[in-house]
Amino acid sequence: MNQDFIKFLSNFEMLTQEEIEIIAKDTHVKEFKKGVILLTEGAICRECYSVIKGCVREYILKDGEEKTTAFFTEGDAIASFTSATNNLPSKHYLVCVEDSLLTVSNQDLERKMCEKIPRLESIIRLEVEKHAGKEHDHITAFISSSTEERYLDLQEKRPDLFNRIPQHQIASYLGIKPESLSRIKKRLITKK
Amino acid sequence: MNQDFIKFLSNFEMLTQEEIEIIAKDTHVKEFKKGVILLTEGAICRECYSVIKGCVREYILKDGEEKTTAFFTEGDAIASFTSATNNLPSKHYLVCVEDSLLTVSNQDLERKMCEKIPRLESIIRLEVEKHAGKEHDHITAFISSSTEERYLDLQEKRPDLFNRIPQHQIASYLGIKPESLSRIKKRLITKK
Repeated sequence: MNQDFIKFLSNFEMLTQEEIEIIAKDTHVKEFKKGVILLTEGAICRECYSVIKGCVREYILKDGEEKTTAFFTEGDAIASFTSATNNLPSKHYLVCVEDSLLTVSNQDLERKMCEKIPRLESIIRLEVEKHAGKEHDHITAFISSSTEERYLDLQEKRPDLFNRIPQHQIASYLGIKPESLSRIKKRLITKK
Repeated sequence: MNQDFIKFLSNFEMLTQEEIEIIAKDTHVKEFKKGVILLTEGAICRECYSVIKGCVREYILKDGEEKTTAFFTEGDAIASFTSATNNLPSKHYLVCVEDSLLTVSNQDLERKMCEKIPRLESIIRLEVEKHAGKEHDHITAFISSSTEERYLDLQEKRPDLFNRIPQHQIASYLGIKPESLSRIKKRLITKK
């Protein structure tokens, strides 16, 4: 049983010790090297992950250019719902940008776990609801913010990304060109 | 029993006729006049809705200015998960922009329905997953698109909005100023 994963699960306060042990026993934990691609455009997503250690980047290819659409780090669940739940080809790629330790699950494994722990279905549902809420907050912030505000917000909420991710990918994630990111940073330094 | 709602529920192919009748019997369907505010900033969201007929707009107030963050029309579920699931004050407002016929539910009603139809828990979870997937697709599109592309995408996916919603609210929803929306429209006419 992976001790890192047990520690990770203990963040979910609604789970009892016994339930944590059942989940940890039935969940695969796997190491992935930096550069490993977990999902490609066009494939149907059959697995979902959560990050114990490391970082996974999500991107789409648009006119041959990578557009970064998400970063998943410690504690984040990586679920490509549009592909997995609807059985549709994925529009995006998932790549490990660091050596990563991930839990790997799928619908079968999840169903079996829910049979063992019936209230898990409703716990997972609550987690998915919270996740949907976060996605909506992200859209709200994106719609209502200037690019400078988006940059400051990311610095406040996910400061670790700035040390882990190349600048051009941060810029792409903010929906701007690397030159615009440099300009914003210079402007903010001048303001100080 | 509301016939509009029964017709609406029959879109969910996984439900049996008997289940549809139980849900319809236990769900409140209510008419709201144009202008009615369903949720205000700072209040904890206790109800969730779905639109049978009409249109609800979601917005935040930023420096005294309304920023439109969502439109909900026929078939859409309106759930403020960040507030409802986490018991936190809402950051946004919900207002009916047309006379609207909505289903009104809450966690208690939902729990009772899940007791009567145990597999409803997993059906709702799948719906929430699909919803989360759509939210993520929306962010992906927003991050990776130019404002012109965003406008064309909205025209393709939700053409009805352009007849139902004032232009300045459409502009706000696209994250741009009304003047920019006018410029995009002029440019596109010239291109034709």
